[in-house]
Amino acid sequence: MGEADGAAFVTAALVVIGDEVLSGRTKDKNIGHIAERLTEVGIDLREVRIVADVEADIVAAIDGLRHRYTYVFTTGGIGPTHDDITADSVAKAFGVSIDVDPRARAMLLEYIAEKDLNEARLRMARIPAGASLVVNSVSRAPGFRIGNVIVMAGVPRIMQAMLEAVLPELEKGRPMLSRTVLADAREGDIAAPLADIARAFPEAMIGSYPFRDEADGRFKTNLVVRARDPQLLAAAGDAVVAMVAACAVD
Amino acid sequence: MGEADGAAFVTAALVVIGDEVLSGRTKDKNIGHIAERLTEVGIDLREVRIVADVEADIVAAIDGLRHRYTYVFTTGGIGPTHDDITADSVAKAFGVSIDVDPRARAMLLEYIAEKDLNEARLRMARIPAGASLVVNSVSRAPGFRIGNVIVMAGVPRIMQAMLEAVLPELEKGRPMLSRTVLADAREGDIAAPLADIARAFPEAMIGSYPFRDEADGRFKTNLVVRARDPQLLAAAGDAVVAMVAACAVD
Repeated sequence: MGEADGAAFVTAALVVIGDEVLSGRTKDKNIGHIAERLTEVGIDLREVRIVADVEADIVAAIDGLRHRYTYVFTTGGIGPTHDDITADSVAKAFGVSIDVDPRARAMLLEYIAEKDLNEARLRMARIPAGASLVVNSVSRAPGFRIGNVIVMAGVPRIMQAMLEAVLPELEKGRPMLSRTVLADAREGDIAAPLADIARAFPEAMIGSYPFRDEADGRFKTNLVVRARDPQLLAAAGDAVVAMVAACAVD
Repeated sequence: MGEADGAAFVTAALVVIGDEVLSGRTKDKNIGHIAERLTEVGIDLREVRIVADVEADIVAAIDGLRHRYTYVFTTGGIGPTHDDITADSVAKAFGVSIDVDPRARAMLLEYIAEKDLNEARLRMARIPAGASLVVNSVSRAPGFRIGNVIVMAGVPRIMQAMLEAVLPELEKGRPMLSRTVLADAREGDIAAPLADIARAFPEAMIGSYPFRDEADGRFKTNLVVRARDPQLLAAAGDAVVAMVAACAVD
């Protein structure tokens, strides 16, 4: 887990905070983006939790994850309204105080006139003691990082800007590479030879994802090979290609 | 939690099983659908976890959730390939045996010719001892229910059919109702009066969701009031409408 030599894995979990996602009112768009970006840079996303705007639930999720993964990201709950309780919950999880941070207040004033910086907006400058700030190039109100926990906004455009701001600072592992092979076959017809390949390449991860091709109505399967080593990826991928070709001839 | 008089809450958690969601390759479409349907019928989705295709992770998620919520739903990992390990993991979590179930095998034969019912496809008929089956009207291979855990497919069309098949059997609470009020205002300008309303109606849940209106480029806010009691919803919703109107006059 994220050892200093850079050879080991760097792992992450994500906590999505928001009643609106659990009620189905808002369809989350952050999980897919974060998953893709972390995979690209060499951080393995191992677990995601979606929890309600309830302090005890947020604290439990953060405490349950931060000792197990290199990083824990959160999205949501850092706006100006009464239901934005993420910063206070994170402070509680770390047992530190929280107050208006002069650096965060100065960032808000780059975007909001001083006369409009009311008590509600100042809530967005409340940062747990000891945290560093994560710049928000969209609307200034910052995210923050305390220990291995990185707190970001829930609005996708702002979250994406914060993620790009913080990624250069983070430790990374060797990225997981992937290769997708399309099989014009039902999953059940290629499962046995695919399992043989999975056994022959135990270090590679081989996934099978069936779908119905809307163009011709046929059931097909995407076979995805994943590995950190390009040579292993090539060898296992070639084995899958050969297997698919052999099945098509049958 | 789901008491027999029907007055209390009925709660649920969801476990999404799949490396492909954590790698970002597949964008999950099931969480939003399940959240919406459960809310509609009166089951409160309280927590979602996305975990990898790793037995220990699946078992830990199921065991961490099944004692805390009325129901635990799972999606993914019940197909015919080597990476489909959900049924075995659930059997392990419950400490029961698992084998090909004659009822499930008969269902498969409604869709698959006996000559094509190879060992891989028979994996889809492996059901933990003591489970009841959840009908799959799309492609027959069933889901199942054991204790309070309901195991469904990951392919959205099949998952949706299984959810509709199992919902009539489940206990339900009083549905959470909601009312959305659009405020042509930035969140920070209405946060203080909104917090006053939240304090005045502690039994209602009031959420604030800012967004940028692409039509006119203005930042606006959706205010969502939620309550089980229609009268409470009306009263709190009217208070929000009046507040928004008063702010617009200012």
